[in-house]
Amino acid sequence: MIAVDWGGSRLRAYWLDADGAVLERRRSDEGALACHGRFGKVLGALIAGWDDPLVVMAGMVGARGGWIEVPYVRCPADAPALAAGMLRLDASREASGLVRRQLWCVPGMADHTTPVGDVMRGEETQIVGLPDTLGRGTHTVCLPGTHSKWVRVRDGAIVHISTALTGELYGLLRAHSILGRSIPDGEPGLDTEAFDAGLECSRDPASGLLHDLFGVRTASLFGHFPPPALASYLSGVLIGHELQAALAGLPAPVHLVGNEALVERYAHALQARGIAVHRHPEELAAAGMHRLARARGLA
Amino acid sequence: MIAVDWGGSRLRAYWLDADGAVLERRRSDEGALACHGRFGKVLGALIAGWDDPLVVMAGMVGARGGWIEVPYVRCPADAPALAAGMLRLDASREASGLVRRQLWCVPGMADHTTPVGDVMRGEETQIVGLPDTLGRGTHTVCLPGTHSKWVRVRDGAIVHISTALTGELYGLLRAHSILGRSIPDGEPGLDTEAFDAGLECSRDPASGLLHDLFGVRTASLFGHFPPPALASYLSGVLIGHELQAALAGLPAPVHLVGNEALVERYAHALQARGIAVHRHPEELAAAGMHRLARARGLA
Repeated sequence: MIAVDWGGSRLRAYWLDADGAVLERRRSDEGALACHGRFGKVLGALIAGWDDPLVVMAGMVGARGGWIEVPYVRCPADAPALAAGMLRLDASREASGLVRRQLWCVPGMADHTTPVGDVMRGEETQIVGLPDTLGRGTHTVCLPGTHSKWVRVRDGAIVHISTALTGELYGLLRAHSILGRSIPDGEPGLDTEAFDAGLECSRDPASGLLHDLFGVRTASLFGHFPPPALASYLSGVLIGHELQAALAGLPAPVHLVGNEALVERYAHALQARGIAVHRHPEELAAAGMHRLARARGLA
Repeated sequence: MIAVDWGGSRLRAYWLDADGAVLERRRSDEGALACHGRFGKVLGALIAGWDDPLVVMAGMVGARGGWIEVPYVRCPADAPALAAGMLRLDASREASGLVRRQLWCVPGMADHTTPVGDVMRGEETQIVGLPDTLGRGTHTVCLPGTHSKWVRVRDGAIVHISTALTGELYGLLRAHSILGRSIPDGEPGLDTEAFDAGLECSRDPASGLLHDLFGVRTASLFGHFPPPALASYLSGVLIGHELQAALAGLPAPVHLVGNEALVERYAHALQARGIAVHRHPEELAAAGMHRLARARGLA
């Protein structure tokens, strides 16, 4: 089968064997929010030459405004419940590369256990691909990113979702705020000392993120760090506050899923608090789609 | 004398009598960051016709990159200490309207009692204009705005400064984030129900600002509020978190200084927590400059 992880800003396709092992991978920058509705053409071109008819997709491609809106499945939900929420899409007339394909899309998940609620799309599929967390007991999964997801899994079912705007806020503050004016453009390597100092801010019970963010300006004004290190300091302030709130009541260890550099940064921050971590690659999405296809009786 | 409150984004001038009462007021949008270095011309034109030679200025006009850099005075500092930090500026050749004027600029203040530190410029002058807080005892002053200042005054001296990025972040999130996409443009009146719901988020000890900000997106997705009310909800989330951190250890009542609409919003938020407030107008800056001019022996 073919597994397609189609997020807002990027697209990854995996060709899998019958056991779900990855035979080949391809990627593109034409994310679901960036491909201007040309879903069929983009997908047809990307998977050309991979002959399997079954294509399973997950991520923002299934959101309102995406290719097909797949309704959210509510917490708590296990793999069979997610598989039951998958929708089939007929795209044979949209692109010649999709004739004779059988296209399915995985649902996102909604958490209505809190007054405001929460949602995710794509991360549920990565979590289903995590073999460790689907056994008995309660597990904590963190998927850092533009919108970091903190997910609680209990006895094989996703029971709680909490999103933090960390990555988006980091980008906004760099690009548009008074803090960004003090920080040179570009992403230099992590300055561990500045990152750790940023993390430390959130440990003060009287600290608040809004104040600590202004501290990036003050740190620049008083020369506490050289300008390129201020990006690391800002990152530490944000991730520190994310952890401070997210860890309340969540059991260790934390399963971290995501791109290697970001997972490394979160692992460092968690370990600084004495919390054990397990690292997992983003490619878990492919394993998750394979598992869901089997649960649905497709593969 | 003439008192000039020259902040980053706007300029206000007051013509005062010998007792410091305001005889006349003028304003302009040519803030210290917006007047492209044309300080002398802008000021000369604004105060034309007011004959007093003594002109005292406060605010970003005295910052690095402003008209003259007046070094920060350190906490703790009372009115005489601030007056001693004032610098005189010779601008008679810059604009014909400034010949025979005697121009002085008030310093900003720096707080080095915390590891990162904090600063303000302009707010110290408003606080000096607050007669209530300069007696014995400890007082709390909040000056909400782009960068909200929380200031502790003890026995007539400013002893602690804490800045929150609240107003700037509100603007950034409206203009550039995924949250802003759900909120119609413009500033509708405050929706009290949505504002109160936003305030309430921060009361949950397990809540974090980064998560609660994403809640604006979720509230939109699930239709918890009509779209125009989401701006009030976002404002409540931000101000609620600002108060939650700022109030730790500060005594009530809170003296609120600023524009009427913003002071009203903060007063509502503080009173919802059972905290008494005193409201003061922005025009306090004029009284503060008059007091500092006298302390310096100029008026």
